[in-house]
Amino acid sequence: MTGAAPVKPQTAPSASIATPEGTPLAAASDPVALAAELIRAPSVTPHADDALELVVKRLEAAGYRAERLIFETGGVPIPNLYARIGTESPNLCFAGHVDVVPEGDAAQWHHAPFAGTVEDGVLHGRGAVDMKGAVAAFLSAALAFGRPAKGSLSFLITGDEEGPALDGTVKVVEWLKAKGETIDHCLLGEPTNPDALGDAFKVGRRGSLSGILTVKGVQGHVAYPHLADNPIPRLLKLIGELTAAPLDHGSDFFPPSNLEVVSVDVGNPVFNLIPAQATARFNVRFNDHFSLATLKSEIIRRIDGAGLTYDLEFQTGASQSFLTAPGPFTDLVAGAVEEVTGRRPEPSTSGGTSDARFIKDICPVVEFGLVGRTMHKVDEATPVKDLHALTAIYSRIIARYFSTFA
Amino acid sequence: MTGAAPVKPQTAPSASIATPEGTPLAAASDPVALAAELIRAPSVTPHADDALELVVKRLEAAGYRAERLIFETGGVPIPNLYARIGTESPNLCFAGHVDVVPEGDAAQWHHAPFAGTVEDGVLHGRGAVDMKGAVAAFLSAALAFGRPAKGSLSFLITGDEEGPALDGTVKVVEWLKAKGETIDHCLLGEPTNPDALGDAFKVGRRGSLSGILTVKGVQGHVAYPHLADNPIPRLLKLIGELTAAPLDHGSDFFPPSNLEVVSVDVGNPVFNLIPAQATARFNVRFNDHFSLATLKSEIIRRIDGAGLTYDLEFQTGASQSFLTAPGPFTDLVAGAVEEVTGRRPEPSTSGGTSDARFIKDICPVVEFGLVGRTMHKVDEATPVKDLHALTAIYSRIIARYFSTFA
Repeated sequence: MTGAAPVKPQTAPSASIATPEGTPLAAASDPVALAAELIRAPSVTPHADDALELVVKRLEAAGYRAERLIFETGGVPIPNLYARIGTESPNLCFAGHVDVVPEGDAAQWHHAPFAGTVEDGVLHGRGAVDMKGAVAAFLSAALAFGRPAKGSLSFLITGDEEGPALDGTVKVVEWLKAKGETIDHCLLGEPTNPDALGDAFKVGRRGSLSGILTVKGVQGHVAYPHLADNPIPRLLKLIGELTAAPLDHGSDFFPPSNLEVVSVDVGNPVFNLIPAQATARFNVRFNDHFSLATLKSEIIRRIDGAGLTYDLEFQTGASQSFLTAPGPFTDLVAGAVEEVTGRRPEPSTSGGTSDARFIKDICPVVEFGLVGRTMHKVDEATPVKDLHALTAIYSRIIARYFSTFA
Repeated sequence: MTGAAPVKPQTAPSASIATPEGTPLAAASDPVALAAELIRAPSVTPHADDALELVVKRLEAAGYRAERLIFETGGVPIPNLYARIGTESPNLCFAGHVDVVPEGDAAQWHHAPFAGTVEDGVLHGRGAVDMKGAVAAFLSAALAFGRPAKGSLSFLITGDEEGPALDGTVKVVEWLKAKGETIDHCLLGEPTNPDALGDAFKVGRRGSLSGILTVKGVQGHVAYPHLADNPIPRLLKLIGELTAAPLDHGSDFFPPSNLEVVSVDVGNPVFNLIPAQATARFNVRFNDHFSLATLKSEIIRRIDGAGLTYDLEFQTGASQSFLTAPGPFTDLVAGAVEEVTGRRPEPSTSGGTSDARFIKDICPVVEFGLVGRTMHKVDEATPVKDLHALTAIYSRIIARYFSTFA
């Protein structure tokens, strides 16, 4: 274990078995015990090795061929896993991550963040929802299903989703491409339900583009404005042009593209000085009306409309939007959710980015996981019944997948 | 001498006499030698004691009753002087300051900033223009004039004009009022000429009002703007309302009132967070269309027009505008300038504030001094001929004053 201090479990796992190496492991069939065990392997990004090794051991014990993939372009070695059982098509891949965001102030938690406590039907701990719970649920479903009669099951698990994401899924996808490894469909286990299991599944994500807009002026005394050139009114005019009209009105599966000015900064501490420079920072979450290129063009077109001089710098880390078109795969996932929860989930494209933005380059990807309300917060937790229901949903998806596509 | 290191004179004063105490003093009739002597008594605010004492000695030697006034509400003792010769009305007062702004990087100066060097007809040094030169010129003119046959001449000299100005002229004016001391007209020796002696004299000053405008919102992730409340668009809307229309179009003697937004600050270092607060800082330089009260009302009226919630804090240090109405006194000053320079100076109300804002409460005040181009800069300097011409102007003002008003 690297980086985080071990926390003594407050509740014993509900079941355990012994591996050949003598490590006690939760029963493969119990997603709650599996999730608790993963929570007890603290894995704040980038220190996910121990949590990932737990997954590797389970999969190898079940006959999966596991590839431990270490990437380090960001300066820190990041563990990743690609594991597969079966050699034929179709290959259904479950994707996810075992790294978690930091616990914050541990004293604020009502249950120790890395104890994996189960109390009154609720599993507590960092990662319960995002997304060790879903990893455990899929692992449990996959191990129960065993080896597909025709086709393959695989896992793409990263330790770098919550961090810079430089050495995680994006690199595994490159590795898969280079290796000629084919995945036919992917299910990503991110929390997708706003309030209750069955609310929504994600069939795409908006793109994200950030920029820094700077206007230069000439510093001077406020009593002599004609000798100075205040950049602030010009920056505000540019922001006005940028935000005057909606970028679009949404599309069939996407909410409208949205531009937020997230900061405006001058840093002038005094009142008698006209400043020399003013800067605005903005972020756009955009739908399939735009590509990165057309969005950049539209932003420049709008700003140029003001006829002013400015500097504009687009930030790295931008991503295209994508949509997994409705079809047999999305129907299959929605149908499994409906059967277990009694509710047809909404196809959604809202919210932040996820590793699906990398996976969409190699196969159709759909996301469904737990209820996200407590993710990234103090007292992250999931009802045990949700973990069982999610396992049932994943089990149905696996079974239907091979009867539909194999 | 307090605070600043003495600098060895590079040029000897052009003339000197011995006082009873044995201190060599420049000839009373030579404003250049007097100004150089004042420059060689470094007096960066608040350490103006030595420079002020030079003035006191000269005035006392000439029969003036001098009151050394120390005020200390700002935490540092500040020396001030009120000196008068004569007991009757009218009382013409020369006002000014002997403190100076710091020299900055002395290595950048082509002549040592506190040496009072005269070279090629130019007097160099910190305060040459702002305003030891003018103090020396008026002192020279007043001492040459002697005691008025009817009426009085007086000096109000502070050591706290370039600093916080808490314990300077404002306090002397309070002291004068409390004492029942009457000044009938005041001439302030600040640099008033943009390019050449005779350009302009100041008959008033704009007021100054600063404010901080804050809008609060609700922080949140940029991908979920409906769960957050971005304060930036609302702040920009308020700024828009505030600056949409000119405050006025100027008046007979004043340029238009001007509002400058001098800073806008959010301080959000990341792109994926909608911030919780945004702040703008502004300053208004305003003319006689407004009082402080009506200007504040107008600002609030404009902002309220947006129908948004905001916090607005006006800063202390605000000042009313004022105007010394055209009449015999302004004519007398302008006439004296025209006689010496051959040019009728423009009556002006532009530029920053000065101690005239305090003096205007007790009598009409007009400002005329040297050319301000090098004030507050490296290589502050004045042509020697300007010092002589200014002395001639002040001499004419003194002579005409008593023939006009006594």
